[in-house]
Amino acid sequence: MSASRAERILATYRLAVAQGDIEARARALALEQSVEMPLEAVTDARVREEVVATVESIRPAEGAFEVVLGIAPATTGGEASQLVNMLFGNCSLQPEVELVDVAFPAGYERCFAGPRFGIGGIRALARVEGRALTCTALKPQGSTVEHLARLAGTFARAGIDVIKDDHGLADQAFAPFDARVPAVQRAIHDANRETGGNALYAPTFSGSPRALATQARIARECGVRMALVAPMLVGIPAFVEMQVELDIPVMAHPAFAGAGRVAPPLLLGKLFRLFGADATIFPNHGGRFSYSRATCLAIADAARRPWEEVRATLPVPAGGMTVERVPEMIEGYGTDTMLLIGGGLLVARERLPDRTRDFVAAVRR
Amino acid sequence: MSASRAERILATYRLAVAQGDIEARARALALEQSVEMPLEAVTDARVREEVVATVESIRPAEGAFEVVLGIAPATTGGEASQLVNMLFGNCSLQPEVELVDVAFPAGYERCFAGPRFGIGGIRALARVEGRALTCTALKPQGSTVEHLARLAGTFARAGIDVIKDDHGLADQAFAPFDARVPAVQRAIHDANRETGGNALYAPTFSGSPRALATQARIARECGVRMALVAPMLVGIPAFVEMQVELDIPVMAHPAFAGAGRVAPPLLLGKLFRLFGADATIFPNHGGRFSYSRATCLAIADAARRPWEEVRATLPVPAGGMTVERVPEMIEGYGTDTMLLIGGGLLVARERLPDRTRDFVAAVRR
Repeated sequence: MSASRAERILATYRLAVAQGDIEARARALALEQSVEMPLEAVTDARVREEVVATVESIRPAEGAFEVVLGIAPATTGGEASQLVNMLFGNCSLQPEVELVDVAFPAGYERCFAGPRFGIGGIRALARVEGRALTCTALKPQGSTVEHLARLAGTFARAGIDVIKDDHGLADQAFAPFDARVPAVQRAIHDANRETGGNALYAPTFSGSPRALATQARIARECGVRMALVAPMLVGIPAFVEMQVELDIPVMAHPAFAGAGRVAPPLLLGKLFRLFGADATIFPNHGGRFSYSRATCLAIADAARRPWEEVRATLPVPAGGMTVERVPEMIEGYGTDTMLLIGGGLLVARERLPDRTRDFVAAVRR
Repeated sequence: MSASRAERILATYRLAVAQGDIEARARALALEQSVEMPLEAVTDARVREEVVATVESIRPAEGAFEVVLGIAPATTGGEASQLVNMLFGNCSLQPEVELVDVAFPAGYERCFAGPRFGIGGIRALARVEGRALTCTALKPQGSTVEHLARLAGTFARAGIDVIKDDHGLADQAFAPFDARVPAVQRAIHDANRETGGNALYAPTFSGSPRALATQARIARECGVRMALVAPMLVGIPAFVEMQVELDIPVMAHPAFAGAGRVAPPLLLGKLFRLFGADATIFPNHGGRFSYSRATCLAIADAARRPWEEVRATLPVPAGGMTVERVPEMIEGYGTDTMLLIGGGLLVARERLPDRTRDFVAAVRR
């Protein structure tokens, strides 16, 4: 497969598995991160050659293995969320897999604008050369607009280069964005005029795409020259898109970047429900993922249990399920469930219509 | 603090720390997830009482401790990304902390619409009562529109209730959304008419807020009646907002919900850079987070090393830094760095202007 190496995205994973399992596990990972189905069920030769991820190398690394996959750039659509999906969408849910590094083929990076200002642009804006820049944060949340503006003035007068909102300052009633940001920017502007300084203010942009657009307008109107955003909170594609309208340097905050350790029943059950999921897919026990039966039942329970006026969410156990398991799954989850079988049907190839009817029949039984 | 219990969001964390440390660690967590600064630096009594998170309980649990924090609902602004931020924004980056559960005070859930259809709505739409529903996926990505439409027809004729796109089917050139979705919906519609069945199609909605809006329009025009979305990929607030326009049941996909195990230099350095961060904040070693010095230097390196035409991102080490550490930090990171000190300045209280000037001076030195 090394002929395609130069054109592939090379993703390095650390796999904590036994020596005897690593080759099969690496191949399974390559499928998981591309076609997400058994190789023998992929009928199209072009898809096998051009779309299925390749295992480029496997080498021992500190009691585990480092596996390099070759991911076809075309599968990412040149778009942020789909790139993340191909890199670590499903396998993020496999605790023995860690995404370690990625190397992109030359030219791929042009799918993205990258930083519009970067170090040079920030330095120019802050008028700082030849030394490190300084930054501080306006806190605590819960403070009044007046308190935060006063604090900002103090920082600016003391010569800080960048004064950012605490990442916990969002659009709360204490100090709403549309009152806080103009007031703080004015305080910094006044301090700059007083001292001849050039402090920048970086307010927190947060919330939904529509909220971000409103915040961008307010910030523009009052002369804000920098922004603070947590990509994992606003969502990576919203983070990418908002930069076009914002057109000022953006500082990324790492909040929520370690979210993998949220308990699955909470994230996939309760929270996704709260945020409006009418159905929620989760990796069923005994499949390709390591969730225990108890965890899976807890997800279903979180999705369905009575909760004030909140409608119940339909649990969708999935991930390597088979028609054979239908009775056991219905016994476990009850009928307010949607069973999801993908590869387990497609593996039947030419007998696919039969296999599918078997599935349908097994559930109707 | 139990008087406020009924009005607080009760978040349960599992903390893997020693017995002797747990009380202090729990208090530190309460600060981290609210005001993000030392308690003694919070000057406003109202903020201490109404905004700082409370430690409601600590109890041993399987070799670790379960800590319940009381988080003030007002700090979440009743908005999805800020709620996630308050629950697990910063502490997601502390590997000894796991978010286990959340209980909301009655009424809080009304900040969100919750599922607009839920189990009842999906059942009504699919005309399925008294049994579990069936679902399968159109795969593999890389297939042509014709192949996927044919596959969908096959599934529909076989009586599947919900036929969803593979979550890897996004908006790639192989089978773009605007060609794929109308064709697949038509194939399913035709099969339904043929069999008298009622299969639903749930295409994958992905990408930026603007892309999601376009996809919603296309889906509406061709009669799509269900949607598949990965909240962690499109971003939780975009996931919430798109539902209003979509107005069909939404199925959440768990892709990327385990992202905590992405290596920090990759996520916070290389990827955030690729997605446009002009500066990137990360938890410096020796602070409140456990990243090693090597990890931190690797983040800075990923942010700044030459990479085709991609501008360099400004590294911003942070998280419990002090003025005393300025020389060592500059020695470690060089001058193309922004030093971020928040609480370490505010803790000076009335001497804040001096302390800030000390910081400024230390960097200028």
